[in-house]
Amino acid sequence: MKQVRIKSPGTVANLVCGFDILGMALNEPYDIMEVKLLDEPKVIIHNRDNYNLPTEPEKNVAGVVFLSVMEKVGGTVGFEVTIEKHIKPGSGIGSSAASAAGAAVAANHLLGNIFSSDEVVQFAMNGEKLASGVKHADNIAPCILGGVTLIRSIHPLDIIHLASPDLFVTVVHPQIEVRTSDARQILRQQVLLKDAIKQWGNIAGLVTGFMKNDLDLIGRSLEDVIIEPIRSILIPGFHEVKTNCKEAGALGGGISGSGPSIFMLSKEEKTAKAIESVMKDVYNKIGIDYNTYVTTINKKGVEIL
Amino acid sequence: MKQVRIKSPGTVANLVCGFDILGMALNEPYDIMEVKLLDEPKVIIHNRDNYNLPTEPEKNVAGVVFLSVMEKVGGTVGFEVTIEKHIKPGSGIGSSAASAAGAAVAANHLLGNIFSSDEVVQFAMNGEKLASGVKHADNIAPCILGGVTLIRSIHPLDIIHLASPDLFVTVVHPQIEVRTSDARQILRQQVLLKDAIKQWGNIAGLVTGFMKNDLDLIGRSLEDVIIEPIRSILIPGFHEVKTNCKEAGALGGGISGSGPSIFMLSKEEKTAKAIESVMKDVYNKIGIDYNTYVTTINKKGVEIL
Repeated sequence: MKQVRIKSPGTVANLVCGFDILGMALNEPYDIMEVKLLDEPKVIIHNRDNYNLPTEPEKNVAGVVFLSVMEKVGGTVGFEVTIEKHIKPGSGIGSSAASAAGAAVAANHLLGNIFSSDEVVQFAMNGEKLASGVKHADNIAPCILGGVTLIRSIHPLDIIHLASPDLFVTVVHPQIEVRTSDARQILRQQVLLKDAIKQWGNIAGLVTGFMKNDLDLIGRSLEDVIIEPIRSILIPGFHEVKTNCKEAGALGGGISGSGPSIFMLSKEEKTAKAIESVMKDVYNKIGIDYNTYVTTINKKGVEIL
Repeated sequence: MKQVRIKSPGTVANLVCGFDILGMALNEPYDIMEVKLLDEPKVIIHNRDNYNLPTEPEKNVAGVVFLSVMEKVGGTVGFEVTIEKHIKPGSGIGSSAASAAGAAVAANHLLGNIFSSDEVVQFAMNGEKLASGVKHADNIAPCILGGVTLIRSIHPLDIIHLASPDLFVTVVHPQIEVRTSDARQILRQQVLLKDAIKQWGNIAGLVTGFMKNDLDLIGRSLEDVIIEPIRSILIPGFHEVKTNCKEAGALGGGISGSGPSIFMLSKEEKTAKAIESVMKDVYNKIGIDYNTYVTTINKKGVEIL
């Protein structure tokens, strides 16, 4: 029986100024998925973790991705998956994208890589639609491709791999709930043109920084005048974390995806570790439980083990 | 007596989606300026063209730049300039920026290059302030540095040279008047977030295209959903020019700066020339006089001859 074991990484969407268009893959945390090709058209899901995610295919992020692949290929193909989730659902570091992208890549692998990279992304986006109501790709794309990716456009899909810089990433996940749909609803539908101009200056600076590996330019460009001022309201301790981390030497950072996780980029591992302590201090003082990760940018994306 | 002769190029600001942040220098048209260092604090201006621009230093774009340099260095320094203008004022291809940047670079050269590149830009921006009421640098930066430049931020000034791609540029200047200040006033102060997201996807795509020399990506990204739909109202024939030029093989293009000139990028010279014919056809039919240029991207910026 054909089967595959894959590793699907956590991701940071938006990268501060690049709302809905930029994303980056992490080396930690990651999910492990084992997928078997079945010769009957059904999807069987086993969870090997404590998150109690639904096992009905229609309600499971990986499940709907398998169903969409099955609908495309037709016939009597099915999938059985065992998911060992380490990226906590609702953390803001691409938990649903890891399941969706992992399922899409595994299915394509088992079927002999009959689908293009764009098609694999399209399948995975069905999982994001289930998770957040929106077919977005800013976690899916870096999860599949690794490094830092740009989604220039969703209709038509236009994904560009930008770079895989050697940067350290520190992430803190305060254990509070921020629903992606809530984080989207509180945004204003209109923005000031002068703020939009600032934002696109920073986006262009950030992209240029990644392409030229100009780390100071990356740092200067990690500024968000549109989304962060609103979404940060939902994350206690956000401004203290950001200020203290930058004082401790972080290049910059901000909300990971729609939060509540916060990420910071550093040039050196020792800075990344010092930043972890700073983050812990803030949440110890506030009295909110948290997880932290000190990791690097993942350059491979979903990996067949 | 110390003197210098310089060549100051025309420029295309905005580059369609990059309103207020991107610009590009052209090999044609360009102005010639001869500047002499005087040993008394005065500015003398001679025009060697038919544009009837003011010769009072306070009312002349180059004049105010010289005055700002003199204010900075103090003492008994002055400048005498002869300007041979080929970039028609009001054309939208950086006529005032060429005078301002040329004056700033020439003055710095005559003073022994005592000012940094950023300071030279700052001096030149005083000229733009006189011309359009706004201290912008999206023509100044490419005029001085050549190639394609990004102004990530004005306060503090953060200018990045992106690339100097080997592309052909076709420009048509329909002989109608569009004041920069009018072109700015008709813009809406608020934009839809969803449009802003589209715009910054295209900006990131365009910057990536320039950095990777991915010409098709440049073409796909030359789309403006915010400024062009409004400003193009002021330019008769705009949509016909754009549609016909793309059909004739242009990568893409749009309004140059605040117009009325329209520019188009092409991979090959023969396409650039075919596009020139297309532009001429449109304005011949409408019955508006025009100038056209078929040129390339200038890689040097202001040049000491």
